[in-house]
Amino acid sequence: MKTILVIADGLAGRPDDTEAGTCLQVAKTPTIDGLVSRGTAGLMHPIKPGVRPGSDTAHLSLFGYDPYQYYTGRGVFEAAGIGMELSENDVSFRTNFATIDPDGKIADRRAGRISEGQEELEEALSGLTSEKYPDVEIRFKTSTEHRGALSISGDGLGGNVTPTDPHELGVPIPQSQGLDERSSKTADVLNEVTSQARDLLESAPINVQRREEGKLPANAILSRGAAKYPDIPPVEEVYGITASVVAAGALYIGVARVAGMEYIPVEGATGTVDSKIINKAKAALKELDRGKDLVFIHMKGTDNASHDHNAEAKVKFIEKIDETFAWLDDNIDWSETHLCFTGDHTTPINYGDHVAEPVPAMAIGPNVKPDNVEKFDEYTAMNGGLGTFNGQILPITLSYSDQLKKFGA
Amino acid sequence: MKTILVIADGLAGRPDDTEAGTCLQVAKTPTIDGLVSRGTAGLMHPIKPGVRPGSDTAHLSLFGYDPYQYYTGRGVFEAAGIGMELSENDVSFRTNFATIDPDGKIADRRAGRISEGQEELEEALSGLTSEKYPDVEIRFKTSTEHRGALSISGDGLGGNVTPTDPHELGVPIPQSQGLDERSSKTADVLNEVTSQARDLLESAPINVQRREEGKLPANAILSRGAAKYPDIPPVEEVYGITASVVAAGALYIGVARVAGMEYIPVEGATGTVDSKIINKAKAALKELDRGKDLVFIHMKGTDNASHDHNAEAKVKFIEKIDETFAWLDDNIDWSETHLCFTGDHTTPINYGDHVAEPVPAMAIGPNVKPDNVEKFDEYTAMNGGLGTFNGQILPITLSYSDQLKKFGA
Repeated sequence: MKTILVIADGLAGRPDDTEAGTCLQVAKTPTIDGLVSRGTAGLMHPIKPGVRPGSDTAHLSLFGYDPYQYYTGRGVFEAAGIGMELSENDVSFRTNFATIDPDGKIADRRAGRISEGQEELEEALSGLTSEKYPDVEIRFKTSTEHRGALSISGDGLGGNVTPTDPHELGVPIPQSQGLDERSSKTADVLNEVTSQARDLLESAPINVQRREEGKLPANAILSRGAAKYPDIPPVEEVYGITASVVAAGALYIGVARVAGMEYIPVEGATGTVDSKIINKAKAALKELDRGKDLVFIHMKGTDNASHDHNAEAKVKFIEKIDETFAWLDDNIDWSETHLCFTGDHTTPINYGDHVAEPVPAMAIGPNVKPDNVEKFDEYTAMNGGLGTFNGQILPITLSYSDQLKKFGA
Repeated sequence: MKTILVIADGLAGRPDDTEAGTCLQVAKTPTIDGLVSRGTAGLMHPIKPGVRPGSDTAHLSLFGYDPYQYYTGRGVFEAAGIGMELSENDVSFRTNFATIDPDGKIADRRAGRISEGQEELEEALSGLTSEKYPDVEIRFKTSTEHRGALSISGDGLGGNVTPTDPHELGVPIPQSQGLDERSSKTADVLNEVTSQARDLLESAPINVQRREEGKLPANAILSRGAAKYPDIPPVEEVYGITASVVAAGALYIGVARVAGMEYIPVEGATGTVDSKIINKAKAALKELDRGKDLVFIHMKGTDNASHDHNAEAKVKFIEKIDETFAWLDDNIDWSETHLCFTGDHTTPINYGDHVAEPVPAMAIGPNVKPDNVEKFDEYTAMNGGLGTFNGQILPITLSYSDQLKKFGA
């Protein structure tokens, strides 16, 4: 059998999202409500009650990994998400191109949200190296706009270092500090690389040109989210399945890749409310046709709208998800497929950031026992047959599809 | 936003508490039922299913601390609860003043529940010292009646020692034994101090006087509940909040103080069924007005009545709690406050001691999603939106108030 896991980021909300309740209550979702009527629902604490999840820790937990055991930091997922090949020797960082003023202070943390010349900037940084530790390998890769990732690779490097991104303006780039012995070397290299990047970028032709055009130069990199490569067994080892991920946001692609899923790029998938998510659905079914056991579809628009305090956009995006489910419902082979739909955390419109409150989850397919839930939201799910549970939605759904390994004999 | 956590000790019961069911079912609680109708309920296993909690371990768990990681013993909370300032070098004990007969045997474990002369007794013991280990510091503090606390302070002292309180009469004070190398020194000091206290107390004027009056002398201290100071991060560090505790029982004050809450004494708060708990409610709201993020109110009468097998008193005390909630309901600023009400464990009337069965819990406030529960007891809570969960009620409630730190990014 096959399994489809659909996660809408920040799907759940609070009573005051709109005058009429949460965005999920307000959105018109005839297909999702029809699906849950044929399936079962529940309330899921993404990690456990009273823990406010990040998207990274939440996804680990939903995939069945204990984030307290496996989470090392966000950098490794961002780096893996933009295509870096990483291994246990890597310490990875998320980076920003930034603008440093002539006094050496940070003038813009995003270099004017630079939207061009990423290849040239990456080329300029291809020569990064540690003179102090020649055995250490440095890699840098750009992503969209000002975003990128840095990897410092060497034997026994620790990942416990302070960031060089101070998250404020008008201050010099802070020196990174290692918080334990093994991490001191990492911090040394990071500081060396940060200083080197300043010189390499300052003279890069793209920045000379940007200055001439009155644009902010991308003349520094700021690094944060330091993370050793986590010792995560892939889903193939844990569950004995093959899997693909269909997503646009680097973080989600990264978590899935580190968990051993194959990344499938999709045209028009942007990680925003404008994303052509129907293409994700189509790509997902192709992956099952190709023989994959599991496909994970991530949709980001719900969280973006929530962080922007935009209830209207969130409702609209949920309705677009509903349309996508209509296509899925028509095209899934329901005789041999289980589908699960949930969020990775609650992001209320007014608060605009993640909170610990549980999220509704639903499962549907031939082996699911239908309950009495006929509409899918944060309230109705309280009464569903899945009850209230902590993360683990992937193995819960895999069980329906007879895709779980036995614990014990 | 603000958070109020109200814990009624031993609140929950069993079907045979009264002929009409549990005390919580029988008590008339119109305000609490009104509150839960506007909020959400659930069943909480104080620690986890099948674990019979002490009040100390339960409170740690409700505050969000894993008691298996942080609990070292009761003595430290009793000592902190009566105002001793403790640190990582301390091993603390609960003590009783006892009466030793001329044959050197324990005649009364509570020195006739001595109700006078506590200051003199404390003064008599102010000279306690270890001759064998002069670097070790000894402190003793009396509490109410026969109760007190002893602290032995020094580098590397272990807390793993047997008590000098045998919990029986007609036997000599037993020698404490260290159960590991570091604790042997602690046991040596405890034995030295216990012997010294015998001499100091025997000749204390208050005891000479008591003998003349035909009263039992308080001529020894018995120590139990040995506990190293636990390595608990304060709530300010864990959650980023400031907090106060309003309670009367030393144990609860102690757990809260060790967790970094400020103790606020309240007139008329006695830790019994006669306590003026309305004054606790008033003091609590004052703490929020003073700028505290969280106030924890502890009410002890429910547990006392349960240990005394007194259903009538327990019902009456629950009804007094309901009246207190009426005042709170009128005076809380509900636009910016979340309130949680629960017990720390189940104490059935007939059994008269803690059992592992779960306790009802409820939360109310602007960000809570109301469920269908309209009465608050051990049965109705089964169907509530909080589901069934383990401890952690403080962080669950703090999430509603946007007072939690994020795990991950």
